[in-house]
Amino acid sequence: MTEFHVSNADFVQTIHKSFLRQGLMRLFGAALDVVQPGHVSIILPFNEGLTQQHGFFHAGAITSIVDSACGYAALTLMPPGTEVLTIEYKVNFVTPASAAYVVAHGRVLKPGRTITVCQGEVVAVKDGMEKLCATMLATMISRQEAHVDG
Amino acid sequence: MTEFHVSNADFVQTIHKSFLRQGLMRLFGAALDVVQPGHVSIILPFNEGLTQQHGFFHAGAITSIVDSACGYAALTLMPPGTEVLTIEYKVNFVTPASAAYVVAHGRVLKPGRTITVCQGEVVAVKDGMEKLCATMLATMISRQEAHVDG
Amino acid sequence: MTEFHVSNADFVQTIHKSFLRQGLMRLFGAALDVVQPGHVSIILPFNEGLTQQHGFFHAGAITSIVDSACGYAALTLMPPGTEVLTIEYKVNFVTPASAAYVVAHGRVLKPGRTITVCQGEVVAVKDGMEKLCATMLATMISRQEAHVDG
Amino acid sequence: MTEFHVSNADFVQTIHKSFLRQGLMRLFGAALDVVQPGHVSIILPFNEGLTQQHGFFHAGAITSIVDSACGYAALTLMPPGTEVLTIEYKVNFVTPASAAYVVAHGRVLKPGRTITVCQGEVVAVKDGMEKLCATMLATMISRQEAHVDG
Repeated sequence: MTEFHVSNADFVQTIHKSFLRQGLMRLFGAALDVVQPGHVSIILPFNEGLTQQHGFFHAGAITSIVDSACGYAALTLMPPGTEVLTIEYKVNFVTPASAAYVVAHGRVLKPGRTITVCQGEVVAVKDGMEKLCATMLATMISRQEAHVDG
Repeated sequence: MTEFHVSNADFVQTIHKSFLRQGLMRLFGAALDVVQPGHVSIILPFNEGLTQQHGFFHAGAITSIVDSACGYAALTLMPPGTEVLTIEYKVNFVTPASAAYVVAHGRVLKPGRTITVCQGEVVAVKDGMEKLCATMLATMISRQEAHVDG
Repeated sequence: MTEFHVSNADFVQTIHKSFLRQGLMRLFGAALDVVQPGHVSIILPFNEGLTQQHGFFHAGAITSIVDSACGYAALTLMPPGTEVLTIEYKVNFVTPASAAYVVAHGRVLKPGRTITVCQGEVVAVKDGMEKLCATMLATMISRQEAHVDG
Repeated sequence: MTEFHVSNADFVQTIHKSFLRQGLMRLFGAALDVVQPGHVSIILPFNEGLTQQHGFFHAGAITSIVDSACGYAALTLMPPGTEVLTIEYKVNFVTPASAAYVVAHGRVLKPGRTITVCQGEVVAVKDGMEKLCATMLATMISRQEAHVDG
């Protein structure tokens, strides 16, 4: 519905490079999927290292990937040399996630020069069926990158 | 300020056993510290696997430990055979966490039979100094355990 | 997308009667509009009594109507004799609301016997154009009504 | 615990003048109480116009005063000519507020040039006893005032 304005022609590459530097995504075995203006998704296959005490995905694992998805969704719309930081988010967990994998979608709800508001959702995929397991509302802030990272 | 009523004499043991079953805490290398009525803390030493793209603790790692701390703080006040699930939480990130380790404190703000409201905070510890890096407000729900876990 | 199950044949009347008892909606001059399974909207015309210091709608006024809209959206799906209380909500304000009137839409995102999660949005209507001004994520709890009101 | 730096010598007067321009506070019959660096409180006496359907204070009325209290708490620390806007907040309602009056306290948790994080709480006062009824976590943004208001 919203038309997004892209100001970094290389945003796909920028995001893939940044994602590779997130140690947590590597530790989790998470992978980038969609990288489009205002929309990024991340896939997370189940493994024992991601569980809470009843064997479901830990709320923190779910939150981690949807936070990254929302942050990168905001970054798709930023000029080169910008970094995006999470100011805050709220997550509702609507169903315990027990599935072969979950997919987190981050979408820009309201772009802005300083503040970007994003909506996230995480779906569990089991036997080819999608089920909503969490929904996020997040506030991101952008600023000039302090220095060029490696 | 609040007086808490404990109804599970073995709550310390219950929580230690449950914590050991959280695959994510093991993957992170997190450890239980305080386990008192209405207050649980978790320590997380820094490692590369916990980072976002600039080398700080990932917001999702911070959130994971403070979610567990809040959930267990609620569990300290529950009768035996109860499980606690996270309905939702909100986290504000006030300083990027770059430190040797972080400590998450979960505290019960308002106990209840069904709904328990918790407050969490995460401090970064660097050169012996504590610095607030995140604050959480969380809603937990308790219910009878569906079945005895292993 | 979600199919909702209605268990109170008189839910429209139930909600209209309840709305009339909300002193705050009367004080504001707010009016019920849509009352459908899982979706309720409330209209609020601008007046000086609803403003913050710069003459826009006060965030609290915006929140009040979208809270009521979400609570009633949850109530559309409840059996007779049930009451719905707000456990918590989060609201993001994306644009200061300066308009002839605003409309709050409350929608059930995930129905449940005890906990219902709702999504709200408030749009400002000016010169026939709609503009998103706030978005809400809310958790409602239902319980048997303690006693019959008036 | 936090030491606050005041950069507007007239902050008390600035806030009283701004409060008088909030039509909603006037409509509610709310009054400023504490105005100190990093801490503002607002008192709201009960009246029928502030109720939800069961005769308690409406969650939106509670939210309105604690939002104003948090915004003004942030403003106590701002240089002259700054305005504070609410980006977002989350509120947990822990007890239905039925009381002669409620008091909202807004406190700065983390001051910042652009972003200020505040914590709010609302207590109901009945027969001289205080009871927590709501807790808020809010994100405020400050910017140069666009123009001088009347």
